[in-house]
Amino acid sequence: MSADREARLEVIALAGLPEVRAGDDLASLIGDALGGAAGLLPLREDDVIVVTQKVVSKAEGAVVDLTTVEPRPEAVDFATRWDRDPRQVEVVLREARRIVRMANGVLITETPHGFVCANGGVDASNVGPDSGSIVTLLPADPDASATRIRGALRTRFGMDVPVVISDSFGRPWRWGIVDVAIGISGLAPLDDLRGIADADGRIMRSTVRAVADELASAAELALGKTAGRPVALIRGAVFQRAEASIREALIPAGNDLFR
Amino acid sequence: MSADREARLEVIALAGLPEVRAGDDLASLIGDALGGAAGLLPLREDDVIVVTQKVVSKAEGAVVDLTTVEPRPEAVDFATRWDRDPRQVEVVLREARRIVRMANGVLITETPHGFVCANGGVDASNVGPDSGSIVTLLPADPDASATRIRGALRTRFGMDVPVVISDSFGRPWRWGIVDVAIGISGLAPLDDLRGIADADGRIMRSTVRAVADELASAAELALGKTAGRPVALIRGAVFQRAEASIREALIPAGNDLFR
Repeated sequence: MSADREARLEVIALAGLPEVRAGDDLASLIGDALGGAAGLLPLREDDVIVVTQKVVSKAEGAVVDLTTVEPRPEAVDFATRWDRDPRQVEVVLREARRIVRMANGVLITETPHGFVCANGGVDASNVGPDSGSIVTLLPADPDASATRIRGALRTRFGMDVPVVISDSFGRPWRWGIVDVAIGISGLAPLDDLRGIADADGRIMRSTVRAVADELASAAELALGKTAGRPVALIRGAVFQRAEASIREALIPAGNDLFR
Repeated sequence: MSADREARLEVIALAGLPEVRAGDDLASLIGDALGGAAGLLPLREDDVIVVTQKVVSKAEGAVVDLTTVEPRPEAVDFATRWDRDPRQVEVVLREARRIVRMANGVLITETPHGFVCANGGVDASNVGPDSGSIVTLLPADPDASATRIRGALRTRFGMDVPVVISDSFGRPWRWGIVDVAIGISGLAPLDDLRGIADADGRIMRSTVRAVADELASAAELALGKTAGRPVALIRGAVFQRAEASIREALIPAGNDLFR
């Protein structure tokens, strides 16, 4: 792209997805929503589909009924002190590969996937009606979840569109949550510009754009948290196609200054 | 917004901005670029302007010529060990209110504004032609920078459009950089949904959307790093208007688990 004309990117939060339940064919529901929207088909080379974690976990049955959970004493102690549900704390500890911080009512863990996040991604909001005791876990293999959706959409629409599974993570040093990628299929999570010249012809030494995370954040801006829209189409983004894993975007514990 | 129709968001990376120099009237250049783009005017109620830090710093003269910098021994030691420019390390240390990490060649500091970021936001890329020894600092008061641009655009176009100043920050635990907000004017940096019911009528306990940061990330997706486009218009985002400061989005050191 040259700098002498505008570049445009569009984020479309899809409507028309029903409440997702365990065993639902999520890719089929997404395909129906794409087909039902005005002017989105045919899919394009520069499209990316972003699907929020909650519907993926629900469709895959990655949920726990807290009424079945017996919390360990450590979970009861922490929950009592910080006014939290001891059964949810227990689920977080069960899912954790490592506890990164457990203080001030905040429980930050490393998940089996390698994500470091609050409550190990275990979440109670937007789980479904009449589901007061249900929490969602992260999908077991979010890259595989993305690949299944990508494959089904390719079969149905004849276009290979990358898929990002997103979730809302907090960050050190800043309040608030932003959506990041927890699973990908068909695109490189990082756009590595090291060795490429900047606009002045100077070699950029340390510029690696976290494109998958920025796609997730852009989708969240259109999706929001309350409106019941779990899937976005992003049209016009610049990304690199690749067979890749979100693991490429995670800093190993040995390289990390904050773990 | 209801969930029964699509929500659309558009990110337009503006073209036509010239190389920005110290003393340039940046708001005027942005106004010209908006006017020169097809179909962007009139500005709308749901528009936000995102301006990348580099052009703000250059216009404000927030730059340092490294040939004028005498590094302290600590800067020379660190730079020698990790193959960095000791004069740039010196500038980072001068600008720092606190050193958060200085290891493995990584220098993470807290700036006078309260941002925690690599190299205190001191940056050598995309500074300008024939500027091999020039680095940019963060603007002295990025909220004020945003407010000046907002005011000038309101005067020129008769529409009060919020402005975000963005910069590229790394994150713990994940490779790559994402753009975040370092200055704002006219919008709330955080969209606090605590106490609002989710799609199932369940009260959300801990959902605070970092909207200003997500706007910055969405802009970066369209702007990129090499193409010489420093300003984006985002049309159709959902945000709260407010007279606010980016400081509201920063976790004070006393509340922070990673400082």
